[in-house]
Amino acid sequence: MKTLSENKCFGGVQGVYSHASDATGTEMTFGLFLPEEATEGPVPVLWYLSGLTCTHENAMTKAGAQGWAAEHGIALVFPDTSPRGEGVANDAAYDLGQGAGFYVNATEAPWSPHFRMWDYVAEELPAVVTANFAVNEDRQAITGHSMGGHGALTLAMRLHGRFRSVSAFAPIANPTQSDWGRKQFAAYLGADETLWTPHDATVLMRRFGFDGPVLIDQGSKDQFLDLLKPEALAQAMMERRQSGQFRMQAGYDHSYFFVSTFMADHIAFHAEALYRD
Amino acid sequence: MKTLSENKCFGGVQGVYSHASDATGTEMTFGLFLPEEATEGPVPVLWYLSGLTCTHENAMTKAGAQGWAAEHGIALVFPDTSPRGEGVANDAAYDLGQGAGFYVNATEAPWSPHFRMWDYVAEELPAVVTANFAVNEDRQAITGHSMGGHGALTLAMRLHGRFRSVSAFAPIANPTQSDWGRKQFAAYLGADETLWTPHDATVLMRRFGFDGPVLIDQGSKDQFLDLLKPEALAQAMMERRQSGQFRMQAGYDHSYFFVSTFMADHIAFHAEALYRD
Repeated sequence: MKTLSENKCFGGVQGVYSHASDATGTEMTFGLFLPEEATEGPVPVLWYLSGLTCTHENAMTKAGAQGWAAEHGIALVFPDTSPRGEGVANDAAYDLGQGAGFYVNATEAPWSPHFRMWDYVAEELPAVVTANFAVNEDRQAITGHSMGGHGALTLAMRLHGRFRSVSAFAPIANPTQSDWGRKQFAAYLGADETLWTPHDATVLMRRFGFDGPVLIDQGSKDQFLDLLKPEALAQAMMERRQSGQFRMQAGYDHSYFFVSTFMADHIAFHAEALYRD
Repeated sequence: MKTLSENKCFGGVQGVYSHASDATGTEMTFGLFLPEEATEGPVPVLWYLSGLTCTHENAMTKAGAQGWAAEHGIALVFPDTSPRGEGVANDAAYDLGQGAGFYVNATEAPWSPHFRMWDYVAEELPAVVTANFAVNEDRQAITGHSMGGHGALTLAMRLHGRFRSVSAFAPIANPTQSDWGRKQFAAYLGADETLWTPHDATVLMRRFGFDGPVLIDQGSKDQFLDLLKPEALAQAMMERRQSGQFRMQAGYDHSYFFVSTFMADHIAFHAEALYRD
């Protein structure tokens, strides 16, 4: 693992690190915020998965999360959204290829050699983080924005017992029924739609739900509402009597101005679950 | 004035606007955050001047200021740091020309036609802002980072009665004695060093001081300490018995991770002055 940068931030350290990934076969970069408490022992950790076009950096600099994480003594992990670099397949569209991994393991050409973001975020990066930093793997939570909200929800529901709480900002909530999902799943996973459903938060909510609290925030003026389909996930949550809340925030759009506005609420929500005995 | 974007943020609006500037002879872009209270009447306003290489956007997205401004009902203005565009002189160095206006009116070729950032920030932009938005010109304060800290301090000390309080993050504190200052003043203002001193915060502090409270934060691990010269300004402040504080923050560097860490303190500091009767 290489240290690319470390900056003191809210009493802790905002680091950027890279490592050779077995999952993707590339060098992968991630951001990690450790609060001051991590100097004395392992701290709870909140994973933040980012959206289309983002790297590890966007949320790290624009989501305003570190101050609240420091207040609660929580670490933050900011993974990248795809493999990158020469020799890695790409597409001219912003919503396919590099920057658009969709948190799946691709089985189709040309994506299958490197686009294994499910394995990377679910297995490899957690092992790297717990081996190298003072985080408590028994106290984990996950959140994300847009495509990253989709990733957070699907990981939380499928990795039973891993996360104590899950939240999302404007998640891609029902990708099997959206052009943000159908296009990418067809490219990465192939034409058999039964292989797509394990990556659809609404479908997973209907079938399994989440064994813990769920918090979703969605802006009412989001320019991508038709692609996000919040109504499908809200319906599934309430039908299942899922513990949690789905909030439609009047006037907010899809930007980090929206994410940062509600970050304090999300981190307080996760802190409550992370510190429960 | 053109509206380039408006995003709801912490109950208010983060806007980006542009206008044809008489001062610079170019189209100038600025960011403005208006808290929700501005829908009911004029609100106090805090100016944030940015550092080298920055546009209006950096602090707007990375300083974490809007949440605290919203809490106190304060507007924020984020001006650009120089004129820009084709036909505007530039230099290959990051610290001269576009992105490096240094808040002075250039008198020397090739800079004098457009590099009039003092007039722009001191006179023209305030007129544009007060004419178009619900801000209270009797309740203004100013802050900034690095070159912007230099700008904030020099404007505050020379525009008597304009600002109720001034703060700075890692300001270029004594530019007439630094390579961040001497190079630019020679280029923009010419060889006569007596014309430089009105743009040196330490000199102004020694001669005039500021009629209000001053707050300076400086990181002890700042990679540019030799260029910033905090010791000169601190000495001048204390020699003058200037009301205020100069804080050396252990371990912090020059980045926005430093700025965002102490933004809450700065906005609370300004709020106290802005709401005084």
